[in-house]
Amino acid sequence: MGQAIAHALADQNLVLAGGSDAGDDPLELAKKSDVLVDFSAPVALGGNLDAAVAAKTPIVIGTTGLTEEHQSMIDEAAQSIAVLQAANTSLGVTLLTALVEQAAARLDEDWDVEILELHHRHKVDAPSGTALALAAAAARGRARSLPEVSRFDRFENDSPRDRGSIGFASLRGGSAAGDHTVLLATEGERIEITHRAESRDIFARGAIKAALWLVRLSPGRYTMNDVLGL
Amino acid sequence: MGQAIAHALADQNLVLAGGSDAGDDPLELAKKSDVLVDFSAPVALGGNLDAAVAAKTPIVIGTTGLTEEHQSMIDEAAQSIAVLQAANTSLGVTLLTALVEQAAARLDEDWDVEILELHHRHKVDAPSGTALALAAAAARGRARSLPEVSRFDRFENDSPRDRGSIGFASLRGGSAAGDHTVLLATEGERIEITHRAESRDIFARGAIKAALWLVRLSPGRYTMNDVLGL
Amino acid sequence: MGQAIAHALADQNLVLAGGSDAGDDPLELAKKSDVLVDFSAPVALGGNLDAAVAAKTPIVIGTTGLTEEHQSMIDEAAQSIAVLQAANTSLGVTLLTALVEQAAARLDEDWDVEILELHHRHKVDAPSGTALALAAAAARGRARSLPEVSRFDRFENDSPRDRGSIGFASLRGGSAAGDHTVLLATEGERIEITHRAESRDIFARGAIKAALWLVRLSPGRYTMNDVLGL
Amino acid sequence: MGQAIAHALADQNLVLAGGSDAGDDPLELAKKSDVLVDFSAPVALGGNLDAAVAAKTPIVIGTTGLTEEHQSMIDEAAQSIAVLQAANTSLGVTLLTALVEQAAARLDEDWDVEILELHHRHKVDAPSGTALALAAAAARGRARSLPEVSRFDRFENDSPRDRGSIGFASLRGGSAAGDHTVLLATEGERIEITHRAESRDIFARGAIKAALWLVRLSPGRYTMNDVLGL
Repeated sequence: MGQAIAHALADQNLVLAGGSDAGDDPLELAKKSDVLVDFSAPVALGGNLDAAVAAKTPIVIGTTGLTEEHQSMIDEAAQSIAVLQAANTSLGVTLLTALVEQAAARLDEDWDVEILELHHRHKVDAPSGTALALAAAAARGRARSLPEVSRFDRFENDSPRDRGSIGFASLRGGSAAGDHTVLLATEGERIEITHRAESRDIFARGAIKAALWLVRLSPGRYTMNDVLGL
Repeated sequence: MGQAIAHALADQNLVLAGGSDAGDDPLELAKKSDVLVDFSAPVALGGNLDAAVAAKTPIVIGTTGLTEEHQSMIDEAAQSIAVLQAANTSLGVTLLTALVEQAAARLDEDWDVEILELHHRHKVDAPSGTALALAAAAARGRARSLPEVSRFDRFENDSPRDRGSIGFASLRGGSAAGDHTVLLATEGERIEITHRAESRDIFARGAIKAALWLVRLSPGRYTMNDVLGL
Repeated sequence: MGQAIAHALADQNLVLAGGSDAGDDPLELAKKSDVLVDFSAPVALGGNLDAAVAAKTPIVIGTTGLTEEHQSMIDEAAQSIAVLQAANTSLGVTLLTALVEQAAARLDEDWDVEILELHHRHKVDAPSGTALALAAAAARGRARSLPEVSRFDRFENDSPRDRGSIGFASLRGGSAAGDHTVLLATEGERIEITHRAESRDIFARGAIKAALWLVRLSPGRYTMNDVLGL
Repeated sequence: MGQAIAHALADQNLVLAGGSDAGDDPLELAKKSDVLVDFSAPVALGGNLDAAVAAKTPIVIGTTGLTEEHQSMIDEAAQSIAVLQAANTSLGVTLLTALVEQAAARLDEDWDVEILELHHRHKVDAPSGTALALAAAAARGRARSLPEVSRFDRFENDSPRDRGSIGFASLRGGSAAGDHTVLLATEGERIEITHRAESRDIFARGAIKAALWLVRLSPGRYTMNDVLGL
């Protein structure tokens, strides 16, 4: 991800102040930077947040696997600097999630919701985290709880589709970076809302867009939705 | 369309008061109906509106090819009854149009917009009216004028894509009732928002949904967006 | 299916000699027909075959749920008349199956095969019979046994995709007549071979095409592949 | 392309003997190599062919823009060494082209053929060379001449689709490496045969597959179809 960010910066004539991979001191790095982008590991987050707060430098956090304790650290930092934290920094996935919530909210349960995803042959977990996040958005749009409506057992089933349920389907093959489709289908018509990632570089690009947006903001906690004005 | 409406009503245990095809008098029909649905012809609209106003019966108008004069007649009727007029009464297309406007508004011109449609082999005009309406929604989302950004001349072109333009592509074949896809593509990722119509019955079904929604509303002019709460 | 066949015949200016629904005697029907089309029930097949043989009239059999005993009856009839039996009389699905077998045979196991299908919300069984037939064609193309390579357990899995396996994914929603996609994916590229049915009328249309093709053939057993020259 | 080939070789534990970019002498390179892969420029082809012939080393030629004169040079070289020349060395596109020819041959002109392609925003020419090659394969399958059946003028048209014609549609946006779909559509059903390239590395990978296949073959001219046994 460090390389992807360096490439994406170069594409936009932005300057990389340094990377913690390079053994730089986080505080020095924070001081000489306009904004920090953290794609490290949960264990490194505390030190990076402390440096950002000490230097009064805004920070974008794309690191995943955060616990509630990490979230509390972020909340505290957000009292003195601008912090944007996101599990997925792709602009496309951020927008897709908002569209899905709206579509599910506006179309009633005469419209069945299904989630399809395709990833490369090496991906073990299924469905993908993004597929679950899209289903959660659809459930939220209908004020339903995701665990209550999720269905993973199509192949062992012996009854028709439950009204209001959300089904999942996962494909694995080749080197696909990740395609997601949310299907809303009713009598006579259907809507398919699809995102296709061509490479994982989109996370770097989205993080940089978020960083540029964040750079002069007041202290507080922000999300990718805020970057898109959603 | 009359038959499609009759079928759709029967599916929902609703009663058809009559059809003007059957030679019924519009005023009599309006009096004994809770709501009127007009898929007639521009020339018949005036008489049907008069009947609706006289009987104080709300009316859904799906007739296409209306002139400004017809729109004035509708405005006047809407002062005494609830009137919903729509060029396309499909719920799916209505929602899609709203999603496309929002997507184009939130994603900047780093995201290229293209419109693809597929219709049966007998359809002569291209692109379809719905494709143009989707492109208009995208242009509206970016505060651009559609004629200014539309591009139909891909095959005679000798320069790369203009930033901010909207391209069109049309396929014709078989008996497809109508598929539309709006593509938003940027470096590394893309979003496809697709509607597939399985048959033209969806216009009847959407009109009935609109009629049920309209039946107790105050006088005024309404759209399919209002039915979906958009 | 009787109605669908009647419509499809009318579209082509062909004459329906009669239908067994109408209580006609099978032998009389067979005598006055150029070719019989049987979409009845397994229990009725014997009588219809006997009539066809007695009248020397070729027969297309689209009835499903046949046992080995029925197959023996068909083999015997095929000694004196032309008989075409098919589980799926759609021309598109017939061709798709042949393309899939060829694609799987030509591309080695560096290419992962996955099968996706979408059907209406009322369909209980998953994956569809056609999805299984497409997977069988892919397995045949690679001289593998379908049970050995099929994988239905993506959501309970904790290991990466097995090389050479065939995964299945099923979506259910709305009124979709049936979409099937076979995905072949490798490092950097993928192929998707898709069939979309707009309605179940395609089975009637394919059966009539088969009947017209069969009408003057010598006794023997034929398949839909033969109709397409595959 | 040189870099892509170097990467693809490393992935398969194959050794790159050298590249002409590095200023190596072609004859020396040909002598120490098991097989040559030429993605150079038309002007360099002659020298590379001479070196291959002198060293008795088979050669894969992926260079495009060749004239009839180049083809004659290749014919002559093929009398003493194995030569495989291809305008597109992707295995997927090679297979797709064969499937399209077969599909068009088996399904009669009741099935309309249309070609859709999507490429990145910088691509100027439309339709793509691969789209034209796919259309040519479909035309060949029906023993029709491509110029006679091609239709590029959908947006200026005022008549329905011609039976037997092949329509084209091109989309441009983002960074898509190249998607192609051949649609075959008839009354009630359709088939879509799609190839998606994730990156241009697939040409390098296909060329290496071709080289490994070619390495011990007798003198003669070969194509990518031969590699796949088509």
